[in-house]
Amino acid sequence: RTLRIGLIPGDGIGKEVIPAGRRILEALPASLKLKFEFVDLKAGFETFEQTGAALPDKTVEILKNECDGALFGAVSSPSQAVKGYSSPIVALRKRLDLYANVRPVKSVMTAKNPIDMVIVRENTEDLYVKEEKTYEAADGSKIAEAIKRISEKASFRIATMAGEIALRRQNIRDGGAPSIHKSPMVTITHKSNVLSQTDGLFRATAREALAASRFSSVGVEEQIVDSMVYKLFRQPETYDVIVAPNLYGDILSDGAAALVGSLGLVPSANVGEGFAIGEPCHGSAPDIMGKNIANPIATLRSVALMLEFLNEETAAAKIYAAVDGNLEEGKLLSPDLGGTATTTEVVEDILRRL
Amino acid sequence: RTLRIGLIPGDGIGKEVIPAGRRILEALPASLKLKFEFVDLKAGFETFEQTGAALPDKTVEILKNECDGALFGAVSSPSQAVKGYSSPIVALRKRLDLYANVRPVKSVMTAKNPIDMVIVRENTEDLYVKEEKTYEAADGSKIAEAIKRISEKASFRIATMAGEIALRRQNIRDGGAPSIHKSPMVTITHKSNVLSQTDGLFRATAREALAASRFSSVGVEEQIVDSMVYKLFRQPETYDVIVAPNLYGDILSDGAAALVGSLGLVPSANVGEGFAIGEPCHGSAPDIMGKNIANPIATLRSVALMLEFLNEETAAAKIYAAVDGNLEEGKLLSPDLGGTATTTEVVEDILRRL
Ligand SMILES: CC(C)[C@H](C(=O)O)[C@@H](O)C(=O)O
Ligand SMILES: CC(C)[C@H](C(=O)O)[C@@H](O)C(=O)O
Repeated sequence: RTLRIGLIPGDGIGKEVIPAGRRILEALPASLKLKFEFVDLKAGFETFEQTGAALPDKTVEILKNECDGALFGAVSSPSQAVKGYSSPIVALRKRLDLYANVRPVKSVMTAKNPIDMVIVRENTEDLYVKEEKTYEAADGSKIAEAIKRISEKASFRIATMAGEIALRRQNIRDGGAPSIHKSPMVTITHKSNVLSQTDGLFRATAREALAASRFSSVGVEEQIVDSMVYKLFRQPETYDVIVAPNLYGDILSDGAAALVGSLGLVPSANVGEGFAIGEPCHGSAPDIMGKNIANPIATLRSVALMLEFLNEETAAAKIYAAVDGNLEEGKLLSPDLGGTATTTEVVEDILRRL
Repeated sequence: RTLRIGLIPGDGIGKEVIPAGRRILEALPASLKLKFEFVDLKAGFETFEQTGAALPDKTVEILKNECDGALFGAVSSPSQAVKGYSSPIVALRKRLDLYANVRPVKSVMTAKNPIDMVIVRENTEDLYVKEEKTYEAADGSKIAEAIKRISEKASFRIATMAGEIALRRQNIRDGGAPSIHKSPMVTITHKSNVLSQTDGLFRATAREALAASRFSSVGVEEQIVDSMVYKLFRQPETYDVIVAPNLYGDILSDGAAALVGSLGLVPSANVGEGFAIGEPCHGSAPDIMGKNIANPIATLRSVALMLEFLNEETAAAKIYAAVDGNLEEGKLLSPDLGGTATTTEVVEDILRRL
């Protein structure tokens, strides 16, 4: 099988980690019978400055018509609002209907307090619809409003995805993979004690989706989002799959990343029907850009996650194992993990372990 | 001076901790020349079930017309949406225009990694305006929308409050109080990379408010809310004052509470012009209700915080010191802190130290 992968480095360290993603795909063992073709694509703040569009239509068209998956690096947020600029990754998620943002947060099994959870974030609506307006109050002062939109459809499909992922994780455990969890569990996160209609709809719909008979082995519980953040830090080992509306998912996944020591370890995949974009959870990190010290692991794991959603689970497992090998040995670590290795050294150590 | 304090225990452990709040006020040394009168007031889910109103008008009127301050315990959130019920504390904040929710999160100075921050949360708008509607899509499925409203006025006054608090904290440090901070700093939290108008207005207005010349000694920085949660857990000792719109403030304060080991330690005050309601950050905790094991410290510190905002700083300092004494000795701790002491025992230990 030949997979055609779009490469969108974006800004900052995106340009250092996406090439690492390409390298690991090229280094996969021939026995997997997987071939890759790559297409370099543009998006980001630099692209905006050069072309006037942060997400050129051509990038979207090539992804839609020619690619099986893609890797997205990171984009800079301008420090002041810039007219006409708006985040290309948010736009891409919506234009390709990549309705789920899947963010596994896992420590190595040898960690003192191992954790192993995945945050399944709705990726198309909530406050990310970006419908905002500004008007003047009677006294001339400004008031701005944004719409938070929650639909039954999107809530149903994201909760279903969370259920599927819980089952899949249990399958892998049943296959003998070591794990801290005994049985599958989905935790629904919301704030329906304040937002009874919007988050109430999310909660009720997620409950309904997870009540389907094929999820009968999956435990279902709920956490109000503030309490979820509290519990995430007090008893993170409890959580298996967390499903959340877009914004809470965004916040929770950064919180969970803190638990494993670095955002530089945490991957994500933006997943739609038959398409997935791997994306490290970290940002463009202008402060360390160009120094060859960015942690490539979030990207390498995002490559594996993309492959999982493209049904190449064996290839994915090889990458995860190589990354875990590097972390468990702990000799060649990037500075965010307290090490002194360069991006290149970490990548090469992981390629050797493939 | 005689202060008239409304007591609103609410539901669950609210009924166990609010009496502790009353006891500490009554136990303050006579040398302070402070007298207290108490008015028992109703609100909460039980009140709703009994009277049909979660926040009876009478409660609001008595607070407005007769009281100098109040203590609020906690309210239960029904596990299913209940017609006509809506959170009385959210309503109270708006009806009394208690525009700031101030939540100090502080470890004892003898902690291994001491932290000392205060979250200043806007308390009247954002998604808490609770303007929601539900409609049907063309295919009959449901869609719900909520308004997130951010005003220049509310943003300006909350940022100003944050600046004042930063200055006040620096004053206390200059007076010789031990601290991990050298200079005052306000961190503005927002998500203006996605919500350019609403959170953009919050950010720009907060910057403007903090640019006032009386804040010239106060450092100002910003964090995007997801990154703020990450940093909160990675380097909490960095933060002095954090100012945030309502919902982010809600989430961040639970996160910060996790850092000090228990929500049972974290107080808050709902502050308006000349009025303050002390409120422990924890909920009604139905699981431990009636067992006399709730941690009273969040409430006792909320009493102190209320007194601070009623300009009784000496009395407040006495309470803080008595609580710190209990925690530093570490002999009589409630179960949430790993101890075996009852609520009553903790309260009595703290009263002895006054
Ligand atoms: C850059 C930003 C728009 C984005 C988001 O909020 O989704 C980022 O935080 C993420 O989590 O991918
Ligand atoms: C109970 C709930 C409505 C409330 C809030 O969201 O403000 C609580 O979480 C708090 O922080 O005081």
